[in-house]
Amino acid sequence: MISRRGLSATSIRETAKHAEAPLGSTYHYFPGGKQQLATEAVRFTGERVARRLREEPAAGPAAGLRAFLGLWREFVVGSDFHAGCPVLAVAVEEPQDGEVPPALTAAAEVFEQWEALLADSLRAHGAEPGQAAQLATPVVAAVEGTVAMCRAKRSTEPLDRTAGQLQALVAAATAK
Amino acid sequence: MISRRGLSATSIRETAKHAEAPLGSTYHYFPGGKQQLATEAVRFTGERVARRLREEPAAGPAAGLRAFLGLWREFVVGSDFHAGCPVLAVAVEEPQDGEVPPALTAAAEVFEQWEALLADSLRAHGAEPGQAAQLATPVVAAVEGTVAMCRAKRSTEPLDRTAGQLQALVAAATAK
Repeated sequence: MISRRGLSATSIRETAKHAEAPLGSTYHYFPGGKQQLATEAVRFTGERVARRLREEPAAGPAAGLRAFLGLWREFVVGSDFHAGCPVLAVAVEEPQDGEVPPALTAAAEVFEQWEALLADSLRAHGAEPGQAAQLATPVVAAVEGTVAMCRAKRSTEPLDRTAGQLQALVAAATAK
Repeated sequence: MISRRGLSATSIRETAKHAEAPLGSTYHYFPGGKQQLATEAVRFTGERVARRLREEPAAGPAAGLRAFLGLWREFVVGSDFHAGCPVLAVAVEEPQDGEVPPALTAAAEVFEQWEALLADSLRAHGAEPGQAAQLATPVVAAVEGTVAMCRAKRSTEPLDRTAGQLQALVAAATAK
């Protein structure tokens, strides 16, 4: 039996709705239950964000970061602070003892993908290779943490503050 | 009836255990059910982290940040990547329509408190007041997001990377 504890299915459905994800509106379509729904939501969000990060390669990492932040702003504001990030929701979940759920593995892969895309973009625009990798991780982490803070506070102020600081970090890393 | 959907109670219990929190080991002790357990866990973690942030005021914001990061490293590694942050877990939750759960309000208050303590410390050590407030938010967001990334990846590498970048940001802000 699939564990029901903690899996934020409502959040996933809500996000999927605002992301226009082709997820079934009921579990009926997902014979694997919540884990499968969660894994699909994680992969869908992963690809949607990745597409944004790849959209403006010529414009550089600052444009990519702006697009990344803009996408989350749309989700959070457009859902009246109800939608969150399914990748983060899954990563916050408690895995069952001795078992790594497929959704958690998918979440780790999505984080890796976003970090790699950001790091590639930073490198392609002059960042020192090691620094690019070091910077991509806290950028992804800060954006994810900020989305959760916006929901708790029902305010976009955390996104505004984080955006400013991350843009400055990216500018400094690529200005060398 | 208290909604059971999504609330990451296992994560909260696990974190509480590693934090040596005086939370009941069963819901028996919490007549308010999961919402009350979650609110207690959020407040307990909030105060525990706040105490760390206040511990070394003379040593400055770099020491405060190191303590903040160190506390999460202890939780995450000490629990073999099972424990997460209950404040983040609650912030990721889906609130029920037309209702702001008490745990979510508590999470927003805890984020505010951590941000204020970091900003105060930055200001007391030479950061420009506006910049201190702008910086405190992404620092808290990045640490929270990083804890979730460490759990998904079962690795402390995200914490190492985030620590390095955040220390540099704090050093730059207080060196002016």
